[in-house]
Amino acid sequence: MASAKARQTHGSETREVILAAAERLFAEQGVAAVSNRQVSEAAGQANNFAVGYHFGTKGDLVLAIVRRHAPSIEQRREEMLAEIKGSSELCDWIGCLVRPITEHLASLGSPSWYARFIAQATTDPALRQLVIAESSTSASMLETLEGLGRLMPVLPAEVHEERSDMSRQLIVHMCAERERALQAGTPTPRASWEAAAVGLVDALVGLWRAPFTPTK
Amino acid sequence: MASAKARQTHGSETREVILAAAERLFAEQGVAAVSNRQVSEAAGQANNFAVGYHFGTKGDLVLAIVRRHAPSIEQRREEMLAEIKGSSELCDWIGCLVRPITEHLASLGSPSWYARFIAQATTDPALRQLVIAESSTSASMLETLEGLGRLMPVLPAEVHEERSDMSRQLIVHMCAERERALQAGTPTPRASWEAAAVGLVDALVGLWRAPFTPTK
Repeated sequence: MASAKARQTHGSETREVILAAAERLFAEQGVAAVSNRQVSEAAGQANNFAVGYHFGTKGDLVLAIVRRHAPSIEQRREEMLAEIKGSSELCDWIGCLVRPITEHLASLGSPSWYARFIAQATTDPALRQLVIAESSTSASMLETLEGLGRLMPVLPAEVHEERSDMSRQLIVHMCAERERALQAGTPTPRASWEAAAVGLVDALVGLWRAPFTPTK
Repeated sequence: MASAKARQTHGSETREVILAAAERLFAEQGVAAVSNRQVSEAAGQANNFAVGYHFGTKGDLVLAIVRRHAPSIEQRREEMLAEIKGSSELCDWIGCLVRPITEHLASLGSPSWYARFIAQATTDPALRQLVIAESSTSASMLETLEGLGRLMPVLPAEVHEERSDMSRQLIVHMCAERERALQAGTPTPRASWEAAAVGLVDALVGLWRAPFTPTK
């Protein structure tokens, strides 16, 4: 039994090392540009098939990275939802979209790779649906979207869908750009993740409340 | 003289073929992931140094791609500026940010690569400043920013800078996502580039007009 336990611990450490190496490589170079073999090498695995053995396909590996961060993000969102229960302020609900991510990024310190990893994974034609579905169907996310739905202005379906896309793009790419600047030591418009969250929430409230021009 | 002329034509054709190959490769794989050698090969150049010979460094090549599209975008923006002269409608001026790009993309047909190329080039730590500076300092762009400046709400410097970043990110990444979906044949929220421009202008007007929360 002790030896089975030891093997298991060793296996889960190997998984952690592979996940960290894959996240960084995907963030830097894009998901399509990096092979399982490169991930194995960067993770110091003598066996080039280590990634396949531990994770299966590249899609499985990408989902495993998403799931590595999900519990911390989910827990923050659940706590925020408990705090704003019944709120009729749009900014409270949009905060539940933005802050679990910015607070999670703040907790990772710099350099972090998660924001750039998500930016890359959601621009990959083969994987974007997988990643977006994974992160938009958790219980806390569904509760947030339901709460938002009650307060959002009523919009034509295509405008609603478009503004959802815009919200995701703005959160993902502003966080990725901030993460990149923090690592490079280049200037950022805001001094902290907390201030960046304030800016994103303000902007998204304005974006959702904007009047729309009907198109034929 | 005839032979010098022929050589020159041949040289400018080679340059065009290289620019087109580089734009597509950079759009698909990112600027850092693609070597000059791969560009030369994709452009069918027997000589692996063709890119270096015709363009110099990778930064020079990226700028040459930007400049290949710039005249069409600039000309559209100048025409729009002439039409809205003296307008006090924020949406007119934001239109001069958005529409020259969406109309240029519409004119390219599908598949186009320009939106994804710009998305990739502006996330490259080494090149982003170069590309952003190149496209934000043309005469028509400066006139647009000046016009916007007169109508935009007065905001603290960091909020103004942040919303400028947001505007660029929203335009670039929404266009890149649309371009990708058109090529893949997957659904897009809006039926045309024209309708996508309407949506972007509406959203950006809301984003800029949004009240801001002071941070300490």
